[in-house]
Amino acid sequence: MDKAELFARFAAKDPRALARALTLVEAGHPWGAELLKAHRGQGSAKVVGLTGSPGAGKSTLTDRLIEESRKRGEKVAVLAVDPSSPFTGGAILGDRIRMMRHHQDPQVFIRSLASRGALGGLAGATVAALALLEAFGFDRIYVETVGVGQSEVDIARVADTTLLVLTPAAGDAVQAFKAGVMEIADVFAVNKFDLPGGERLILELKSALELSPPRPGGWLPPIYPVVATTGQGVEALFEGLEAHHAHLVRHGLLEKHRLERARFEVESVIQEWGRRRTQEKGGQALIQAVAQGKLTPEEAALRLLAPVAE
Amino acid sequence: MDKAELFARFAAKDPRALARALTLVEAGHPWGAELLKAHRGQGSAKVVGLTGSPGAGKSTLTDRLIEESRKRGEKVAVLAVDPSSPFTGGAILGDRIRMMRHHQDPQVFIRSLASRGALGGLAGATVAALALLEAFGFDRIYVETVGVGQSEVDIARVADTTLLVLTPAAGDAVQAFKAGVMEIADVFAVNKFDLPGGERLILELKSALELSPPRPGGWLPPIYPVVATTGQGVEALFEGLEAHHAHLVRHGLLEKHRLERARFEVESVIQEWGRRRTQEKGGQALIQAVAQGKLTPEEAALRLLAPVAE
Repeated sequence: MDKAELFARFAAKDPRALARALTLVEAGHPWGAELLKAHRGQGSAKVVGLTGSPGAGKSTLTDRLIEESRKRGEKVAVLAVDPSSPFTGGAILGDRIRMMRHHQDPQVFIRSLASRGALGGLAGATVAALALLEAFGFDRIYVETVGVGQSEVDIARVADTTLLVLTPAAGDAVQAFKAGVMEIADVFAVNKFDLPGGERLILELKSALELSPPRPGGWLPPIYPVVATTGQGVEALFEGLEAHHAHLVRHGLLEKHRLERARFEVESVIQEWGRRRTQEKGGQALIQAVAQGKLTPEEAALRLLAPVAE
Repeated sequence: MDKAELFARFAAKDPRALARALTLVEAGHPWGAELLKAHRGQGSAKVVGLTGSPGAGKSTLTDRLIEESRKRGEKVAVLAVDPSSPFTGGAILGDRIRMMRHHQDPQVFIRSLASRGALGGLAGATVAALALLEAFGFDRIYVETVGVGQSEVDIARVADTTLLVLTPAAGDAVQAFKAGVMEIADVFAVNKFDLPGGERLILELKSALELSPPRPGGWLPPIYPVVATTGQGVEALFEGLEAHHAHLVRHGLLEKHRLERARFEVESVIQEWGRRRTQEKGGQALIQAVAQGKLTPEEAALRLLAPVAE
């Protein structure tokens, strides 16, 4: 596929052109950026971020949510963001894709992206990929992150609705509570609700939410018991996601979310530049000077960024 | 304390001047930066980072490690890095300090610092605080982080030795494995080893480590069973930390660690600048242009950074 063909096929909504464009965006190839620039801001998808501990059943739940979307005729994309660990990366990707029964549905597009580092947050490329999927014309985009930590905070900045998936497994609620993740969730799913402790977890969540600072527009995060493996409760959960989106629209909050996403993207670019410059030859000398106490980190940062801004 | 007095008392190793200087550094006050510049690179502490899930017993274990350090006559500092969550922040700090029996020992200095965001990584201020503690003349600095995620990756960049604290509690090993945290640990402690499942966890860790990529200098991360509440196994663990430090020295890796710490500090400064600039008035207009598809994130980043580098 040459450049003209890629651009024409992407405009004509060819999924193979989309797949190619995503690869280019992820690799930082200039064609990807150009294509993105040409289409940026087109389309308008409902973006749902799924997060939660490993083993909470996020992939199975995503699979069920795709089903609900498809019942309603939505064109769906899934971005699965994986930590690019030499340990586990590959295996997780494989498992996850196999789990998606909708892989053969032409109205469903599933893509895995590596996150920045072993445990780093979302890469700038993730948001670029999101913009590309939106421009392509999907109605709904599910962004699934593995693990806890920075990527959970990032996902809340990027998604319109953040869904936190918990389970009655020992310590899950306490962990979410301690880590401060609860504050970023718009909707809660208590998955594996058929296991003991589900009701108790819901009560714990409710009392924790009562202490939580008020949300924009007075939104009260709902909690849905689900069993992703059987599909039990998933329709109600989907309606909860819809209700949150309607709340955003009603209170003019969607625009705010989009600004926050753009801010995240710009900050990611700056962070990437900083990272790249410290690895370059001139950068390494500056780092050495900081380590030896000859320069302050601020002085080194200023010198590092000078060529970027010229 | 005026500026001259602060500088004189810090140089004379007055702990109250240190406490004051840390507050200034954390607040970004220019005196803090000046004091740091005057003393940066002085002293040489062994820096141990402790990380692991919430509830793994990191504070209790830190308390025991302080004991081991004091037995050997070391002057010890503890930096406890807490997520600055409106939910939990205060409570965690309070609990933690009460737990430290060594709070009254003049050779032990304990300080809590807020991390960047709810779940963000270590703030640049943490590394600045570390540099200040080192300059003050501590022999050993324990840096303890709460929660999992970005701060665990960050701690490995900042510490000489990273200690991962796990427990036989359900799913702990699997979580560490999935999240890729295992790759950043130099030493493992299986705490609460008196609970069922301790031996099994050690076996699981061992087989996971066999698949792990080789470490610098051929280091094989040791695993220590401990019971922090009784002190059982803590002396052996301390010797393990010493062995890792000796390994770093023997293979000339300590210098590399110090460069990585300086790089982390410079990257943090750049990231902070980016974050601040996007919040300013001119920055907000640029972000809006990105959201509307009128500017690419790269173009906006370039314009944002231009005044910094002038």
